[in-house]
Amino acid sequence: MKIEIKFDAALGYDVFIDEIKEIKLAGKAAIITNETIAKLHLESIKKRVKAKELHEVIIKDGEKYKNLQTIEYILNELFKFKLDRKSTLIAFGGGVVGDMTGFAASIYQRGIDFIQVPTTLLAQVDASVGGKTGVNSDFGKNLIGTFHQPRAVYCENGFLKTLPKREFNAGVAEIIKMAVMFDKEFYYRLEDIDLNDETNLKDVIAKCVKIKADVVAKDEKESGIRAVLNYGHTFAHVIEQKTHYSEYLHGEAVAFGIVMANELAVNLGLLDKNEALRIEKTLQKFSLPTRYNIEDIDSFYDSFFLDKKSNNSKITFILPNKIGDFVIRDDVEEKIVKKSLGAFSR
Amino acid sequence: MKIEIKFDAALGYDVFIDEIKEIKLAGKAAIITNETIAKLHLESIKKRVKAKELHEVIIKDGEKYKNLQTIEYILNELFKFKLDRKSTLIAFGGGVVGDMTGFAASIYQRGIDFIQVPTTLLAQVDASVGGKTGVNSDFGKNLIGTFHQPRAVYCENGFLKTLPKREFNAGVAEIIKMAVMFDKEFYYRLEDIDLNDETNLKDVIAKCVKIKADVVAKDEKESGIRAVLNYGHTFAHVIEQKTHYSEYLHGEAVAFGIVMANELAVNLGLLDKNEALRIEKTLQKFSLPTRYNIEDIDSFYDSFFLDKKSNNSKITFILPNKIGDFVIRDDVEEKIVKKSLGAFSR
Repeated sequence: MKIEIKFDAALGYDVFIDEIKEIKLAGKAAIITNETIAKLHLESIKKRVKAKELHEVIIKDGEKYKNLQTIEYILNELFKFKLDRKSTLIAFGGGVVGDMTGFAASIYQRGIDFIQVPTTLLAQVDASVGGKTGVNSDFGKNLIGTFHQPRAVYCENGFLKTLPKREFNAGVAEIIKMAVMFDKEFYYRLEDIDLNDETNLKDVIAKCVKIKADVVAKDEKESGIRAVLNYGHTFAHVIEQKTHYSEYLHGEAVAFGIVMANELAVNLGLLDKNEALRIEKTLQKFSLPTRYNIEDIDSFYDSFFLDKKSNNSKITFILPNKIGDFVIRDDVEEKIVKKSLGAFSR
Repeated sequence: MKIEIKFDAALGYDVFIDEIKEIKLAGKAAIITNETIAKLHLESIKKRVKAKELHEVIIKDGEKYKNLQTIEYILNELFKFKLDRKSTLIAFGGGVVGDMTGFAASIYQRGIDFIQVPTTLLAQVDASVGGKTGVNSDFGKNLIGTFHQPRAVYCENGFLKTLPKREFNAGVAEIIKMAVMFDKEFYYRLEDIDLNDETNLKDVIAKCVKIKADVVAKDEKESGIRAVLNYGHTFAHVIEQKTHYSEYLHGEAVAFGIVMANELAVNLGLLDKNEALRIEKTLQKFSLPTRYNIEDIDSFYDSFFLDKKSNNSKITFILPNKIGDFVIRDDVEEKIVKKSLGAFSR
């Protein structure tokens, strides 16, 4: 299965949702991966990459290493390998590896090519497509980075077999996010789908890639509709920050955030209360947590303003109107937001 | 005087070669400058920038601070000021400040706007136009960076009055470079021009910006003709590296490099020997050094391969055919290169 991503007449790339037979590169290449994935799959992917020279850079596993220091380490390794402007990086791992590899590629000798071989469900359905790259700073997540599109994306089901169930389910949160925002038929299918079935899984990945491709093609730099992919994320980022990025996986924080966004949408008279419950049930079906306990509503609210998606003093909320339809609102009164947050305060 | 730089129908910006009356910005802004320029001109420029909020980041002066650590320092300051995606950075200084500010702007929250207010001749005629940004790594100069075009460039003669004569002359080396490559009438004018005359100076800056704009418009990412601007630089980079970036100014190294490139061009039967001497004389007229003493020819030659402009095992030489005309050669025999280097070995 092949999905084409088109930005304009000149720019575009393919996403392959199949077993990888061979990745052929004209120049030198380096696989960037982490310790966990290297142990499980590095030999398997190396056999299938044909390049003039094939190097590897193995970084530590985890969000806390997603910073400029790791980028400098990666770049220095690439300089040692004498990669040139015609070389290609291969991002082999989850979202963290993908974001950092893309960032390193975008600033190595003012930009070289990279391809994505995502090994987590979250990266396959969302993070690997669309060209957002970057690292965290002391001031927040993904605050440093570039837009740099990959040359190709290869999504292989096989890599997901070694993925811990909890991480798999975290990826499902992003799938539900896309369905609720853009496609009600797709959402209904998710309510009773079995994702252990390989064909179902491939279909779902393809569907998500198509949705994402459409959105990104319309708005690469996130000046408009691309922000809709942040449904649940305004809340999720605060939760991640409050829990020091260690208690919940990103997808789990998104699950919490979706339920919070829905509560706000219900209070604004947008979403029907039954639909909100229905979405929460679907999240729970995939063992996702849905009820985050907000200890201090004021402090939670203030944290919205640290998020880079908020310009000046307005908070942008991405909300479902009904399942399969969204609204973007930056005029929601503080009172209503705090009332909605109150529903999550024990 | 205003020169338009056009990349395509959508992308472009203006270069103003006049006294700056006012720089008006819609959002927040931060001036990035160094200690030396801050002392001389910061108050003067601050009065003329109108922004919602105006911040400043002052970095240490010098090429040795052009690294990722300084970039991280700049970014952290910007986060403290809570600059958002609609904010603008103002690069206020020479090439180092311009390259670093552009780089910081290109990776802050995945890219924000910046404008260039160059305060050295070298930056006004060359570095500030064209969107090359970056920092040095332990492995070489400008090896980390992006292409990120400024929104506008403001070249004010006034700032050049405080520029040390030696630095001014270093800027002239890049002017001579452009004239020899692209425009023989312009070159002839340079042979007996008085650059202390303000009108002459403005004319020359405008001429260089036009040449650069033409080249960059044709080849933003340096896959072809833009490389011609590296005339003399293949040699200059080796000289800078051998002298630890501390003995000569960049423009002085370029002056050495131009004479070396000319020697090679003469030996290849391209450039007339008299024209080579003529160019050397023009460099000397501006008190530029022209005879670098190569201690070890083999080691000098090997250092070419560390330069990022060389792909694989070929060295690309930009050579004058005659004054005002260039050739790009990547097939020059080692023997002829070493013979040419020999002319500089006492």
